Amino acid sequence: LRDSTKLGQSDDPPVLQGEKVQGIGKDVTYLCPYSGAVKGTLTVTNYKLYFKSSERESPFILDVPLGVISKIEKIGGATSRGENSYGIDLLCKDIRNLRFAHRQENHSRRQVFEKIQQYAFPITNKQPIFAFDLAEDYGEDGWKVFDPIAEFKRQGLPNESWRVTRINENYEACDTYPSLFVVPAATTDDDIKAVASFRTKGRLPVLSWIHPQSQATISRSGQPLVGVVNKRNKDDERYIQMIMDANAQSHKLYIMDARPSVNAQANKAKGGGYEREENYQNAEVVFLDIHNIHVMKDSLRKLRDVVFPTIDDAHWLTNIESTHWLDHVKQILSGALRIADKLECNKTSVLVHCSDGWDRTAQLTCLSMIMLDPYYRTLQGFEVLVEKEWLSFGHKFAQRVGHGEDKHSDADRSPVFLQFIDCVWQIMRQFPNAFEFNEHFLITIMDHLYSCLFGTFLCNCEQQRQKENLKVKTVSLWSFVNCQKEEFINPLYAAYIHQHVLFPVASMRRIELWTGYYCRWNPRMRPQEPIHLR
Amino acid sequence: LRDSTKLGQSDDPPVLQGEKVQGIGKDVTYLCPYSGAVKGTLTVTNYKLYFKSSERESPFILDVPLGVISKIEKIGGATSRGENSYGIDLLCKDIRNLRFAHRQENHSRRQVFEKIQQYAFPITNKQPIFAFDLAEDYGEDGWKVFDPIAEFKRQGLPNESWRVTRINENYEACDTYPSLFVVPAATTDDDIKAVASFRTKGRLPVLSWIHPQSQATISRSGQPLVGVVNKRNKDDERYIQMIMDANAQSHKLYIMDARPSVNAQANKAKGGGYEREENYQNAEVVFLDIHNIHVMKDSLRKLRDVVFPTIDDAHWLTNIESTHWLDHVKQILSGALRIADKLECNKTSVLVHCSDGWDRTAQLTCLSMIMLDPYYRTLQGFEVLVEKEWLSFGHKFAQRVGHGEDKHSDADRSPVFLQFIDCVWQIMRQFPNAFEFNEHFLITIMDHLYSCLFGTFLCNCEQQRQKENLKVKTVSLWSFVNCQKEEFINPLYAAYIHQHVLFPVASMRRIELWTGYYCRWNPRMRPQEPIHLR
Repeated sequence: LRDSTKLGQSDDPPVLQGEKVQGIGKDVTYLCPYSGAVKGTLTVTNYKLYFKSSERESPFILDVPLGVISKIEKIGGATSRGENSYGIDLLCKDIRNLRFAHRQENHSRRQVFEKIQQYAFPITNKQPIFAFDLAEDYGEDGWKVFDPIAEFKRQGLPNESWRVTRINENYEACDTYPSLFVVPAATTDDDIKAVASFRTKGRLPVLSWIHPQSQATISRSGQPLVGVVNKRNKDDERYIQMIMDANAQSHKLYIMDARPSVNAQANKAKGGGYEREENYQNAEVVFLDIHNIHVMKDSLRKLRDVVFPTIDDAHWLTNIESTHWLDHVKQILSGALRIADKLECNKTSVLVHCSDGWDRTAQLTCLSMIMLDPYYRTLQGFEVLVEKEWLSFGHKFAQRVGHGEDKHSDADRSPVFLQFIDCVWQIMRQFPNAFEFNEHFLITIMDHLYSCLFGTFLCNCEQQRQKENLKVKTVSLWSFVNCQKEEFINPLYAAYIHQHVLFPVASMRRIELWTGYYCRWNPRMRPQEPIHLR
Repeated sequence: LRDSTKLGQSDDPPVLQGEKVQGIGKDVTYLCPYSGAVKGTLTVTNYKLYFKSSERESPFILDVPLGVISKIEKIGGATSRGENSYGIDLLCKDIRNLRFAHRQENHSRRQVFEKIQQYAFPITNKQPIFAFDLAEDYGEDGWKVFDPIAEFKRQGLPNESWRVTRINENYEACDTYPSLFVVPAATTDDDIKAVASFRTKGRLPVLSWIHPQSQATISRSGQPLVGVVNKRNKDDERYIQMIMDANAQSHKLYIMDARPSVNAQANKAKGGGYEREENYQNAEVVFLDIHNIHVMKDSLRKLRDVVFPTIDDAHWLTNIESTHWLDHVKQILSGALRIADKLECNKTSVLVHCSDGWDRTAQLTCLSMIMLDPYYRTLQGFEVLVEKEWLSFGHKFAQRVGHGEDKHSDADRSPVFLQFIDCVWQIMRQFPNAFEFNEHFLITIMDHLYSCLFGTFLCNCEQQRQKENLKVKTVSLWSFVNCQKEEFINPLYAAYIHQHVLFPVASMRRIELWTGYYCRWNPRMRPQEPIHLR
């Protein structure tokens, strides 16, 4: 991975420890949408596809982890006419398409096609994901980056109002929650079980972050199981009161429901819903109007059509607007801003939930924590944040990304995490000195979300990761990152100035398309590319 | 100017040497479009208006040079009803409106209104512009920044192919050209006169820049006086051939006509036009499709409506697109890029002209010179560039800006120079390490283009400036800039990396709205402003 360009001189692809060549296609043509057709050799390993053009001098190289492939299709048949009409088309999770043409004889594409299918979709083929085969040693152990007890301690927890509970040590209270979490000090184990029973999938309200001065908190949960009959639960109501009481500075609590109110309402039919203010004393319910995973997925699909492969320059802004991607980004940032504002300016605690509490909720808690706490703007702090709010709290990475599965149109797939990373980029953009890490760090995380090179983003929750023994059998992405930190450091970082809260502008006028990610395959986005190709 | 905020504690406005208070309005209300009405005192001097709110603690201060005012209007009469309905409205050249309300008694607005009118429009009132009264000493002499001989020498001129001519010492060959310019070495004074007679307003082709390696050049001129009968001029044709011959590396010359071809065609009816390729051997005419000053002015007017005072966030991108401002910026950048590309990649000389050769031509020569020559990306180099290509070559600053004149809707006014500065900002944005100066430098130039504090941008050409004796009677903007260079330095400047040619991407997808200038009055564009005001 790191050495691919250096080793590009030899004819064999560079391989990682544990990586093996599985198939080779000679005389293959890569159909680049920008610079046209180029002939070369396509090699498939158990981790990547590697195309190298035939020129001796500065050959063109394509090096793509198979994990990024969402769909593989054969184009044309043995009798198709027209140059380059017979080949393979790969739809990728990272906003690009790759197209290869093969010679129309001897089933020349068969081996390559089968090998890509086999290793791009190991789960479908009942094989291990490549992360289990990787045998690189980066001299760092990224699995040690996140220690929940240490992170609680950094926040000053436990304290007189909050305690760390081990009730979920065996994932029995809530199977998608971490083994350790923080609850109001006054709660008993029975309280916890009772409250869990009134929340979607047992996802009871637990603490995410506490304000070091005011003690106002961000808690997160799943929706209450109110249903069409508006069921009440005294334990849940008392528990919410305990969260409010843990903050002496305010006699109010905001429940920030990430959903549009109509969706929250509609969830009642499925047994869910939201808190009725008359039952929760001093709580105010606010709907943040963020759409669900299906809407986001559809929006990204439209964005993809606008940016890849070619851009209609004459209608660029209108086309971007019509995808609504930036509206969604704005809405999420705006929600996170409201949460941060309540904590910082009103000293009031906030409970955040959506339906299940693992998609929009994670986006919101994370982004408001980044605004409120400068620690999360450091490289290590951001790693901890991802481990804590996304991984340990059960964002279903495997399902949302579709690791190793040949189910391109699976309705559960959605770019929720990408959207979060996009929002982080937006904040970075507005505060260029406030983050220790750079854009390359964010792109690296996105690339390895799909690559399946590391164990970090595999599985859907902590329990599954424990069961798979990922910490022993795979390498952490943070091992790879932390052994070369200098690559990911923002030279403009001015830690001493930005130890305060960041309030970004969450308006369309300040939200920008992250072209460094969405348009990165297009050389016409980059200065200094030859003028005559533009 | 520099001390306005520091001195804000006293009740009198801070004044410059030479500045005097002319009128004071008590109990005036400033109607801020963002934070609402605020009461205070409005003072008018011979240079600025100064509003200070009544609060003792951190009063609100507005400090606006009168030169920026384009139009002053009385709002309401003595019998108008409604709060704040009686007052003064100021339309400003820097994309804002200022509105003050006065008490509806004793003609309370009269003095302030009359003093603003008197000092904002000194030319109309047959008074001197404030620059002639300024008596500050900045300890630097900005008038010495540009020495044409030194700049020619820096470029390696004169050389065997090019000579410096003094034929225009008394501005007799061309009254809007500099006293010194560079022509092909082989030309005689009679040639020059003959060619001048065939070019609009005598603006014959002369050298702007020469490539240090290839000797390819950028020349500039006015349009040829071809007319409807397609007149020819042998001297002009031979002269163009001499420009081509001065570059041994290429047997071709590009004539880049900045206009859309239909406009170039239409100019024939007025005696102008463009070179017929059959008459100019080996010359190729290219139309760069840049619209005229009227179109640009109209586009900026639309942009102003979109950005000031409030922004429709829901249709932000569509609204921006509909003004076409970014299209025009793109078109200019794209033209400059083509010129730079011809010189750098084809080693071919280029002659640039539009109609008169003092608006679009200056934009194009300057921008391509910034792309080609790293010197112009330094603070001093940029000052030299503005002095050379804009001031000495007769961009009609007085007419385009309307210095001191109460003629708001004068058809000759147009944001040509602003558009150039916007293009520079776009290049800076794409190459954040390539410029020694920062955005604040560009905004400072724009502010003093309007302020009339310095002599730099007064008058329409060098001859007029000589006659007015500006170098003796006024201070140069560069005196003010160069005595505090640290304010204008880009900390990311990496001179050693960017000693090469810059080829920015001139596509809509990479052109951005310069919100730091156009939207700077709007606090809702800025992070960290109070959330509840957004």
